[in-house]
Amino acid sequence: MEGMSETTAPSSVEHVSHDGPHGYASDKEAYLKRMRRIEGQVRGIARMIDEDVYCIDILTQVSAVTKALHAVSLALVEDHLGHCVVDAARTSPDEGAAKVREAADAIGRLVRS
Amino acid sequence: MEGMSETTAPSSVEHVSHDGPHGYASDKEAYLKRMRRIEGQVRGIARMIDEDVYCIDILTQVSAVTKALHAVSLALVEDHLGHCVVDAARTSPDEGAAKVREAADAIGRLVRS
Amino acid sequence: MEGMSETTAPSSVEHVSHDGPHGYASDKEAYLKRMRRIEGQVRGIARMIDEDVYCIDILTQVSAVTKALHAVSLALVEDHLGHCVVDAARTSPDEGAAKVREAADAIGRLVRS
Amino acid sequence: MEGMSETTAPSSVEHVSHDGPHGYASDKEAYLKRMRRIEGQVRGIARMIDEDVYCIDILTQVSAVTKALHAVSLALVEDHLGHCVVDAARTSPDEGAAKVREAADAIGRLVRS
Repeated sequence: MEGMSETTAPSSVEHVSHDGPHGYASDKEAYLKRMRRIEGQVRGIARMIDEDVYCIDILTQVSAVTKALHAVSLALVEDHLGHCVVDAARTSPDEGAAKVREAADAIGRLVRS
Repeated sequence: MEGMSETTAPSSVEHVSHDGPHGYASDKEAYLKRMRRIEGQVRGIARMIDEDVYCIDILTQVSAVTKALHAVSLALVEDHLGHCVVDAARTSPDEGAAKVREAADAIGRLVRS
Repeated sequence: MEGMSETTAPSSVEHVSHDGPHGYASDKEAYLKRMRRIEGQVRGIARMIDEDVYCIDILTQVSAVTKALHAVSLALVEDHLGHCVVDAARTSPDEGAAKVREAADAIGRLVRS
Repeated sequence: MEGMSETTAPSSVEHVSHDGPHGYASDKEAYLKRMRRIEGQVRGIARMIDEDVYCIDILTQVSAVTKALHAVSLALVEDHLGHCVVDAARTSPDEGAAKVREAADAIGRLVRS
């Protein structure tokens, strides 16, 4: 698997503490289920290509997977804002500001992806 | 795998013929390789969630996968226009028009995904 | 101007207080300058259509305007998180949660636009 | 107006001929009307900023304008495929291939904008 680290990707903002349970922790099983389903959809697209399915029908499935990934991203963003960012804001203005900056960068990557 | 048909999805434009090799046929192996890599990335994200990796780092990887899927879609669109749409246009104005309509709908779904 | 209210659009979350200076207040002049520039670009596209400029060149300019609007949205989101959401989080958990919910909805509309 | 040429932007693919009426010619008035409406919406957003309207309500309007611009882009793409690309395909395989390449690039900019 090129393009991503095998285990734990390093945080992009090293000086911001992010120990403890993360925003998505309480829904971990639901997120894992969604990712397994997306994995199955990706495998299904490979099978469609292998079976020479019509281009437009493959495109429709790729769009469905992209939509499902965007939905996961939005759920992660909301959980992150509601836990990590809110907690940081309640700890100190500086920690709040650092977390907001970091979240805004992630939202920017999401919008451009 | 909910949300998509197990085998061959029906074409959205039934009256348009689309037998024979499709736009992506000559690059089939390259497309399959890209999809396998994306599948590995999706599995990597599930592993990150399972290992309680920081939300922002997960978001970064989800954006990378979305980007990779968009790139696959764009390649499929270009192959489709260059083969299926061009061939239809050379066959008859009506077949050309039907394929253009169908391609524009797929591009619309892609832009909104 | 159809499709938007003439004066002040009603807030989508009426029960959340949002008096006082908003997130973008300190940069108001910069935002106004960006919007005037985007307005000029939109007018430029109308002129290109009127002068029968080539479709692809018009599409390039429309993409440039869409990109500029996305950049404005991201700046507004960051200002909003850094002021309104952080302030609400520091006031009470409930106000923080309501603001996060509202911000996540806006980010969702942005990603899908 | 920085960032775009004042009059006619040069084509990005100089060697491809694109004289004569373009894809959008027959709907020129409808396109001009849509652009004027978008111009009014952009001016409305500037007014909202000037009147210190709540951030989220401004974001909602920016998303509406982005959506309207995407719809214009998709209509231009469809008109372009149905006229310029189909005509080129019927003229010669080489002209068809050049137009497809150019259209795919424009669609890529649209998806990423």
